[in-house]
Amino acid sequence: MTYRLYYWPGIQGRGEFVRLALEAAGAAYEDVAREGDDGEDELVRDWMRKDRPRPPFAPPYLEDGDQLIGQTATILLHLGAKHDLAPKGEADRLWGHQIQLTIADLVKEVHDTHHPLGGGLYYEDQKAEAKRYAAGFREERLPRFLGWLEQILTHNIGSDWLVGETMTYADTSAFQVVEGLRYAFPKAAGRALAKTPRLVALHDRVAALPRIAAYLSSPRRIPFNEEGIFRHYPELDD
Amino acid sequence: MTYRLYYWPGIQGRGEFVRLALEAAGAAYEDVAREGDDGEDELVRDWMRKDRPRPPFAPPYLEDGDQLIGQTATILLHLGAKHDLAPKGEADRLWGHQIQLTIADLVKEVHDTHHPLGGGLYYEDQKAEAKRYAAGFREERLPRFLGWLEQILTHNIGSDWLVGETMTYADTSAFQVVEGLRYAFPKAAGRALAKTPRLVALHDRVAALPRIAAYLSSPRRIPFNEEGIFRHYPELDD
Repeated sequence: MTYRLYYWPGIQGRGEFVRLALEAAGAAYEDVAREGDDGEDELVRDWMRKDRPRPPFAPPYLEDGDQLIGQTATILLHLGAKHDLAPKGEADRLWGHQIQLTIADLVKEVHDTHHPLGGGLYYEDQKAEAKRYAAGFREERLPRFLGWLEQILTHNIGSDWLVGETMTYADTSAFQVVEGLRYAFPKAAGRALAKTPRLVALHDRVAALPRIAAYLSSPRRIPFNEEGIFRHYPELDD
Repeated sequence: MTYRLYYWPGIQGRGEFVRLALEAAGAAYEDVAREGDDGEDELVRDWMRKDRPRPPFAPPYLEDGDQLIGQTATILLHLGAKHDLAPKGEADRLWGHQIQLTIADLVKEVHDTHHPLGGGLYYEDQKAEAKRYAAGFREERLPRFLGWLEQILTHNIGSDWLVGETMTYADTSAFQVVEGLRYAFPKAAGRALAKTPRLVALHDRVAALPRIAAYLSSPRRIPFNEEGIFRHYPELDD
């Protein structure tokens, strides 16, 4: 069974959290808008279909047989259970999901550092506002999110991972956040990560997993760029 | 077993989605910061504890015996399963959660209409930016979110509810969103809701459920106000 992932072809974005889980699982998937003949057109056409009883609100969404699943965190809940990438047991499973949703909140705030007035305006038309938003993000929010992940790792004694004893999608997502923050805010992320050595070690551990290492050095991994969520605008870093 | 809900005592906010589920279930719960002797101080003290292996990132969070669950959508996943408020079957369960996460995205955008530059600044210090953000929200995003819910209801033929045949937490959450939007944006929400009659009917159906009706007319329901997420600032509605 080959999954079909619907996401924008030119960016990592939110779809990357799904790609990393699929790669970590060694699952077969088609990245529809990247591999199909019609590229982004196929994605948009599929997304806009009006006949679906369970329409996805926005990409990314995943087709698994006759099931169509939207919302990054829901997709990970589904893949986690199927591919041994979720914690075992109901309480641990919920806790892993809680971490994922908090990472999703962080990702939304990262997006808002360059688009505080909304996605309907260009960055150039909200640059001054982006600077004000980004200052609060760098000084308050970024250290708080990363410190929270560090606290979790500190308390998960004897384990190399965020939840329980084994690697889960919460770990691949934490890896991605560290990668993205280092790209977008090299200065501010450097300062914050200097205080979260366990999170940095977790990042390195995920990066060294054979399947993840192979993915990262493959053409399937889209480089960060200024169309995605993690964008490097030097004026927003300090 | 009495649940303990930790949330800000003076607002509906994100905690209200949890309160509505608890009330719909007829579950016993203590709203800690509202009912305890120490009010908000108890919430803040508890939230800031550094000894927790699984710390909640932010209120609301729910104590269920020795389990502490944060993130509104995770709490609802937990309560839904325990109190017959979630869809049955794995695919339906995921679909209900996907709706909840999309409602959460809408709620975050509502928050950002009055705080586009972040929670660290007062509304008064970002009023001009709020006007620009709110315009895009009213014209683009609000109709799109509500239209998406309407499409779901249209396709769930023969049912009065969003998912399957029975009422779930997705329905109480959709009710709350309609209530909040009508309070915050009476003009814009009125226009959008005129095009979503099934969503309006769903709202009315939830409001008429005996337990919900009793809750809404009780002092436990905090009135909307300008400290919460849904705030009525006439200058942001048009």
